[in-house]
Amino acid sequence: MPSRYEDLWSLSVRRGFLWPAADLYGGFAGFYDYGHLGAAMRRNWENGWLDAFLGLDENYHLLDGTIALPEAALKASGHVDQFTDLLVRCTKCRETHRADHLLEDVTHEAHEGLTAEEADAKIRELKVRCPRCKGELGPSQPFNMMFPVSVGPLGQDRAYLRPETAQVAYLNFKREFEALRRKLPLGLAVIGRCFRNEISPRQGVYRMREFLQAELQIFFDPSTWEGEIPFETVADASIHVAFASEKGKGGFESLAARDLAGGKLPRWYVYHLAKVQDYFVRTLAVPPDRFRFAELTEKERAFYNKIHFDVEVRQDSLGGFKEVGGVHYRTDHDLGGHQAGSKERLEVTVDGRKVLPHVLELSFGVDRTLWALLDVGYGTRDGKAVLRLPPALAPIPAAVFPLVSKDGLPDRARTLWEGLRRTWRPIYDEAGSIGKRYARMDEVGTPLCVTVDHQTLKDSTVTVRDRDTGAQVRVPEATLALAIADLLAGASFPPPT
Amino acid sequence: MPSRYEDLWSLSVRRGFLWPAADLYGGFAGFYDYGHLGAAMRRNWENGWLDAFLGLDENYHLLDGTIALPEAALKASGHVDQFTDLLVRCTKCRETHRADHLLEDVTHEAHEGLTAEEADAKIRELKVRCPRCKGELGPSQPFNMMFPVSVGPLGQDRAYLRPETAQVAYLNFKREFEALRRKLPLGLAVIGRCFRNEISPRQGVYRMREFLQAELQIFFDPSTWEGEIPFETVADASIHVAFASEKGKGGFESLAARDLAGGKLPRWYVYHLAKVQDYFVRTLAVPPDRFRFAELTEKERAFYNKIHFDVEVRQDSLGGFKEVGGVHYRTDHDLGGHQAGSKERLEVTVDGRKVLPHVLELSFGVDRTLWALLDVGYGTRDGKAVLRLPPALAPIPAAVFPLVSKDGLPDRARTLWEGLRRTWRPIYDEAGSIGKRYARMDEVGTPLCVTVDHQTLKDSTVTVRDRDTGAQVRVPEATLALAIADLLAGASFPPPT
Repeated sequence: MPSRYEDLWSLSVRRGFLWPAADLYGGFAGFYDYGHLGAAMRRNWENGWLDAFLGLDENYHLLDGTIALPEAALKASGHVDQFTDLLVRCTKCRETHRADHLLEDVTHEAHEGLTAEEADAKIRELKVRCPRCKGELGPSQPFNMMFPVSVGPLGQDRAYLRPETAQVAYLNFKREFEALRRKLPLGLAVIGRCFRNEISPRQGVYRMREFLQAELQIFFDPSTWEGEIPFETVADASIHVAFASEKGKGGFESLAARDLAGGKLPRWYVYHLAKVQDYFVRTLAVPPDRFRFAELTEKERAFYNKIHFDVEVRQDSLGGFKEVGGVHYRTDHDLGGHQAGSKERLEVTVDGRKVLPHVLELSFGVDRTLWALLDVGYGTRDGKAVLRLPPALAPIPAAVFPLVSKDGLPDRARTLWEGLRRTWRPIYDEAGSIGKRYARMDEVGTPLCVTVDHQTLKDSTVTVRDRDTGAQVRVPEATLALAIADLLAGASFPPPT
Repeated sequence: MPSRYEDLWSLSVRRGFLWPAADLYGGFAGFYDYGHLGAAMRRNWENGWLDAFLGLDENYHLLDGTIALPEAALKASGHVDQFTDLLVRCTKCRETHRADHLLEDVTHEAHEGLTAEEADAKIRELKVRCPRCKGELGPSQPFNMMFPVSVGPLGQDRAYLRPETAQVAYLNFKREFEALRRKLPLGLAVIGRCFRNEISPRQGVYRMREFLQAELQIFFDPSTWEGEIPFETVADASIHVAFASEKGKGGFESLAARDLAGGKLPRWYVYHLAKVQDYFVRTLAVPPDRFRFAELTEKERAFYNKIHFDVEVRQDSLGGFKEVGGVHYRTDHDLGGHQAGSKERLEVTVDGRKVLPHVLELSFGVDRTLWALLDVGYGTRDGKAVLRLPPALAPIPAAVFPLVSKDGLPDRARTLWEGLRRTWRPIYDEAGSIGKRYARMDEVGTPLCVTVDHQTLKDSTVTVRDRDTGAQVRVPEATLALAIADLLAGASFPPPT
C-alpha cells in the first residue's frame, strides 16, 4: 500500500469515517463500519446519487428489497453455478489464495476468467509458489462467493445473501411495470448491502465481504431505444475511454460521444457513459484527468454482460486507476433467466408488441466511491491536512465557534448556532485554540467555519472562513444563513457583499 | 386478519408500497420488498426520524455498521445463549410452532418468557393441539433465532446476521467516544436491516424475518444524568401509559410526566417517553387516542432490559394496539458484556471519574411504523380511498396534470412540472379522466394536485387541490412554488391569497 493510503486510513480511523468492524474482538477481515462522519457523508452521497440518476427519466424510481434471496432465484440468475472465483490452497501451510490474484502479483496483468485448468497451467509455467511460506500450491478449484443461509426453524429453505442489488430489481420488474405506467424504459434503483465471501480480502476497504451498492437497472426495448435516446444532448461530450488493449498503460483517450457511438457501441450506451462521466466530474468534482472508463475483455467480463466498461477513478492511495463502478449491458440475460427459472412470463406489452426488456445497469460501489472521493479530496495546506470534499457531501456543513471562551462570546455563538440548526446540522465548538479548531474542521472537509469575535458584539458581523483557501470575510449575522446556503450550493468564495 | 388488513394490503401491493419478496418463485415466508412508493416513503421517514432524534442533543450522531457480526461479539452480548424462542413440533404432521403463540391463541394473553418446562405444563393443562392437524404436540425446546453464516473460503469464521442494530453502536462506542468530544451523554443512531429466523412468521408484515430498525443508543452516566436532563421542559406533558396489569384491556391512562417520574421511573426515562410520544403525535400525526406506552413485565422483557415500555399504535388492520417500538433501559448490560467478552476496558473518564456508561435505547421497527402510518392514514371520502399521510412522508409530494390532453394544456403543464422538478419530485400525468387521476393520487397519499386548465392560458393561474378535503383553490403560477412549499411544510389549506 502506498503511504498515502496509510495517511488517509489513519485520518479515517482517528476522526470517524471508516474503520474496521468489531475490532474489539480482534478484527473481522473484510468488514468495515462507518463512523459518524462516514455515515453522514454517505447519506449525503446517497441523496445526491438519487437526484442525479432518478432525474434521468421520470419513469425511474427507487425500490428496496431483501438481502436474503431464495436459492431458486439465484439459481435462475446463474449465480449458484457461475458466481465463482478460483481458490488455491498451499499444500504446506494450508493458506488459501485467489488464483488470479497470485498470477496478477507476478505478471502485473489481470487474469480474471481463467478456467481451473488454465490457471493451474499458468501457475506451473510461472512457477508461482505460496506467497506466505513459499510452499507448493495445490490445484485450483471454483469457489462460490455467495454466503448461504438456511431459513425456517428446521433450516428447510435454502437462501443466499445477495451478491448484488440488481436481482431485487429483476425480481420486482413485472410488478413495478404493472403498478406504474406500463412504459419502457423503466428504471429501478436500489441502494443497499451486498455480500461476497471473498477468498482473501485485501487492499483495505477496496475489497470488502459486506459492501454497499447503488445500482440503477434500466429496462428497455432494444428495438426502439436507439432511436428514442436524446443522444444529441451529449453528442459533443468528450468521453474518457481506455480500451481493453490499452488500459494497462494507465491512461485514456478522449473521444467525442458522437465518434464513440459510431462503431460497436450503441448510442444509448454512449449516452449513459456521458451521463456517468458528467456525474463524477461535475457533481462529485473529480478532476477530469482522474476519471476514465476502462473496457473489459470477454474473459474479464461477468458472465451476464455483453458490453462492459468499468468506471475508474485514479487514486494515489491505491496506486492508480481503480474501479468504482461499471456500465453494463446485460441483454435479456436476467429477465430471460428468471422467466425460465420461475416459469412466469416476464414479457410486457408495449405499443401492441410483446417485449422481453433488455437491461442497462449503472452500477456503483458506494464504499469504493466514497473512498475515491476521500482520496481525491485529501491534500495539505501549510503542512496541515485539508479534505476538499464537494460541499454537498461534507459530513459537517458548517461549524460555529466563539473566538475565545469568555467576554460573552460563547453565549452569542450558541445563539447563532441554535438559529442555524433548524436548517443544517452545524457543530458548535469552543474547545482549544481557534487555529486548532479550524484545523480539525479542515481535515474532515467542513466547507465553512463561522466565528463570533469581539467585533460581533459591536456591529453584529461574524467571520466566515473558507476551507479551501483559509480566506475569511466578515458577513452580517442577518445575511449569514443566505451566504451559507449559497456557498454550500457551490457559489464561489468570498460571497458578494 | 380483519378485512381492513386485506383492503390495505391490496392497495399496498397494487400501487407499490410493500409486497411479498421473490413471489415469482412462489414466495419467501417472512420476507417483503418495498415498491417505489414504499421506498420513497421510507426514505422520507428516515430523514425525519434523524432530524427528530439526532436533534435531541448535539452529541447524538448517525453511525453505520455491518449486518454480519462475529460470533464472539454475540456470545458476549448474550444472544448466542439467550436469544431464543420456544419451538414446538407437532408429533403427527411435523409442523413447527412457537409455544407462546400457541398459548396466546388459546388464552388471548401474552406468554413470553416461559421456560420450556413451564410451556409444556401450560400446553398440557390447556390441552393445546396442533392448529393445523389437531395432532399431539411434542416437547418445547429453545430455538435460537439468529441466522448463522460462515465467513472465509473454508467457513472458518463463524458469524451471525445481527438480530438488532444496537450491537453496532455498542461495538463502536469507545471509538466514537474518542473520535468525538469525550462527553456523556453520547448518542449513536443506526438505521438498517436485521434478521431473525422467526419460527412461524405471521400477521403479514408485522413479523418479518428480515426487517428494518432505527435505533438510538444513548450512553449516559447513571450518577449524573437524573440531575442534568432538562425535565422541566416536558414536566407538564400528558403521557399515555398502560401498566402491565392493565394493558390487556386495550386502553391507557394519561399521566402528567411529573407524576409518572415520581415513582419507579427515573426522570431521564420519562423525559424520553415524552419525546417519543411527541414525535408520534405531532411529527407523524398519529391521533393521540391511538398512541400509548405499554409496560412489560419482567417475564416479557428481553433479558437485557431493566425498564421496558413498548411503543404502541392502535391499528384497525391488526385488531388493536400493536408494538412499533420500545424505550429500553438496558443498564450497563451491553458495555459490561462486551468488556468481559473482549477483555478490553470500555470505561471512559468523565470529569475525572471512571464510568462504564449505562444505555437508554429508543428502538423503532421501521416496517411496523410505516405500516401503522398506512393504517392510521387509510380512509375513504365519497366511497373512494384516501391515504392521509403527513405531507413530509408522502411518497409523491405533488402531481401536475393538464385538465385535458389537448388545446396546448399538456405543453403548459409539462413546462410547469419541469420547473417544480428541481425542488421536489412531483409526477406528471395526463392519462385518463381528471377524476381518475385525482383518485389515483388520493389513494397513495399525494397531498397536492396541480391542474392546468383553459383559464391557465388566459390568466396564468392553476388549481391546487387538497387531498384531505378535495377542495380546490386557484393559485397564480408565479407563487405556486411558495404555496406548495408552505403546504408541504404543514400550512393549512387553502393557502392565504
